[in-house]
Amino acid sequence: MRAVDLIRKKRDSQEHSREEVDFLISGYTRGEIPDYQMSAWLMATWIRGLSGAEIASLTEAMLHSGKVITFPEIPGKKVDKHSTGGVGDKTSLILAPIVAAGGLHVPMISGRGLGHTGGTLDKLESIPGFNTSLTLAEFRSVLGKCGMALIGQTAEIAPADKKIYALRDATSTVENIGLICASIMSKKLAEGIDALVLDVKTGSGAFMQKEEDAVRLAELMVETARRMGKKAVALITDMDQPLGRFAGHSHEVIESIEVLSGRGAADLRDLSVELAAWMFFLGERTESLDEGRSLAEKLVASGEALEKFRQGIALQGGDARVIDDYSLLPQAKNRKEVKSRASGYIAAMNCMEFGVALATLGGGREKKEDQIDPGVGLEFHKHIGDRVTAGETLVTIFYNSEAKLAEATNRIENSFTLSEQPVPAKRLVRRLVGA
Amino acid sequence: MRAVDLIRKKRDSQEHSREEVDFLISGYTRGEIPDYQMSAWLMATWIRGLSGAEIASLTEAMLHSGKVITFPEIPGKKVDKHSTGGVGDKTSLILAPIVAAGGLHVPMISGRGLGHTGGTLDKLESIPGFNTSLTLAEFRSVLGKCGMALIGQTAEIAPADKKIYALRDATSTVENIGLICASIMSKKLAEGIDALVLDVKTGSGAFMQKEEDAVRLAELMVETARRMGKKAVALITDMDQPLGRFAGHSHEVIESIEVLSGRGAADLRDLSVELAAWMFFLGERTESLDEGRSLAEKLVASGEALEKFRQGIALQGGDARVIDDYSLLPQAKNRKEVKSRASGYIAAMNCMEFGVALATLGGGREKKEDQIDPGVGLEFHKHIGDRVTAGETLVTIFYNSEAKLAEATNRIENSFTLSEQPVPAKRLVRRLVGA
Repeated sequence: MRAVDLIRKKRDSQEHSREEVDFLISGYTRGEIPDYQMSAWLMATWIRGLSGAEIASLTEAMLHSGKVITFPEIPGKKVDKHSTGGVGDKTSLILAPIVAAGGLHVPMISGRGLGHTGGTLDKLESIPGFNTSLTLAEFRSVLGKCGMALIGQTAEIAPADKKIYALRDATSTVENIGLICASIMSKKLAEGIDALVLDVKTGSGAFMQKEEDAVRLAELMVETARRMGKKAVALITDMDQPLGRFAGHSHEVIESIEVLSGRGAADLRDLSVELAAWMFFLGERTESLDEGRSLAEKLVASGEALEKFRQGIALQGGDARVIDDYSLLPQAKNRKEVKSRASGYIAAMNCMEFGVALATLGGGREKKEDQIDPGVGLEFHKHIGDRVTAGETLVTIFYNSEAKLAEATNRIENSFTLSEQPVPAKRLVRRLVGA
Repeated sequence: MRAVDLIRKKRDSQEHSREEVDFLISGYTRGEIPDYQMSAWLMATWIRGLSGAEIASLTEAMLHSGKVITFPEIPGKKVDKHSTGGVGDKTSLILAPIVAAGGLHVPMISGRGLGHTGGTLDKLESIPGFNTSLTLAEFRSVLGKCGMALIGQTAEIAPADKKIYALRDATSTVENIGLICASIMSKKLAEGIDALVLDVKTGSGAFMQKEEDAVRLAELMVETARRMGKKAVALITDMDQPLGRFAGHSHEVIESIEVLSGRGAADLRDLSVELAAWMFFLGERTESLDEGRSLAEKLVASGEALEKFRQGIALQGGDARVIDDYSLLPQAKNRKEVKSRASGYIAAMNCMEFGVALATLGGGREKKEDQIDPGVGLEFHKHIGDRVTAGETLVTIFYNSEAKLAEATNRIENSFTLSEQPVPAKRLVRRLVGA
């Protein structure tokens, strides 16, 4: 078998066998197939597409390029949630404590923000001392002690994905649902979980802006998870506007603590309960989804979920006093209000622009090696469907440097579309896939 | 400008500006754009295609990646011919002496054989001592002295093409007419010529098997040459069967000498006269094509063309005695006749298989670094349309090693299709493009 022939095959829209996919992925991981052949294959694949069987082969080949964790010493079900990312999406920080407090185990391997999206690891690292770079032994130990552990992808987990992702990023071959599915699922299936809840975002702030693309990706991921013997379901959720009231790293940690304390924005609370309920149900902790919802609400109301978060932060080296004293978190020095230039109903937001504006202010990365300013943030005062009057505040910007404030302000101002007619509010959960 | 954005642009079927093409090619040549980005762009380009304007930009960018030769010290017109390659195509060895004997200058930069095709350089190197690796100063000197000089691509000529071609070969992005056109023309336009005659082969032994692809490539090359201020015409010629009676390096040198001596196979003689006539006409040596034909025939009949070849061989360090004593050329030790298994009219040949059979016997390369056995060869006794009887010899194989003789024999035997009905002979020149 030769890589050049497999590139030709995909170029000519032919389907690969499992052996061919294995040859490519294992050869590339070992360094026997050079970057330039893999990138030609990736481009052919981006354009020609992958079949369901090819995606399954690719996922498995990438999964088995590294270590597949199991937790035989930890009794009970292990469950996780994965989101495809958006603006203000901090549900991982809320779900892990709720579900761990409910008695399931949540071994969560997360990513960093890139482009307009925030990353769970970056948000956690705004807590002083919080260490997301645990060894697998430490990960196992923290998980056993408190039922939750949140780390980044290690060199041992799906190294093929890490290598291929870097190449895709440099060769404009990222946005392909087959490649995205294999990338996500190879990492998630390496976590040793029994069930996975997928939160696939769609709308102006999501990678999959069209709902049909989000649904197709969701279907592929659910199918792939089940092929590998895992329970899975996907929620297609709205990202036409930010989730919750805040975006920005320390601001999102605070908002997560607020929700775990029974306060916080209604949309974020509702989605957290919904996702937690699915995790409880798929993890066989409850017999129904409704029972899962009730359990999640009870664990928040009783303070058990918040205590679990406190325990988790401490076990990963973080300063758990942040839960009671937000001033221990990084805070931007200045604030500026972006006001509405006209009156009307908010008809649409270009949600991705909020993420780009935040990144512009230092609260995101353009390149992987960029440093993040964890204290900058955005507060969203309005939702789609709300009526605003001219001069009313739409967004508060929390910033440190004036350097790109004008650009960020401009992006935010231009992201709102007003209508003279009333506009219906958005439904948060648009569809269920695999339920 | 960033390479990753240009890759995305081509991936999404958009057209590049001249500046974008320049950025890619000059960045790649300087090593600032890595192989893996160029190969992703090449695959996107292979699949999405290039416009005429993009091909012109690419050709110019590749041309100007290196030295563009001019010959201000040599008076008169410089002309060349380029063939897209096939089996038994040795016209360069015949044309250069005829046209130089006629008073024009032929600065010919040629290639090596790859796959099923032979290369002019390899054929010349079967002449003991013949040096195709002249410096540009030596090239200039030989050309000035005898009107012809035949060398290989130097590091100074179109280095972008050399680097990109190696990458295309390893990433299945060779067979694209836009990339082929830019590759050929960037080298040919670097030669300092005033006019170029293109011999674009089509049929079962050509890279462009379909005539419509050959015509499209021919049109692109003629258009590109004219855009650069060069006269150009393309002949679409038949490669459904070998050209001339022999294939194999020293055999083709002998056959070329035969034609220059007024003997040799009729098809090879006719095509050589036709191509030489076009070179004379475009080089303004004659006022008509017919006059060009007469001049070519006269230069062969008078022995002047053969004497020019003798002079050229000597000036490039070769043993010119080969012209009178073929035993000085490498010769295979053994011969085997492949006979027809049935009687009938030859309806078709799988001409590429002859080239592959020859390569199998050592007379070609599978990889660039392979050594060639210059003495092995094939003699073709029949043309399409000829009547054969069972047991009659179709092909004589000249070989050294028994190792792959059976495979080669088998390939040759299976390449003939017989018909019970008479079959018309093939026309050699199928079409003219740009005339």
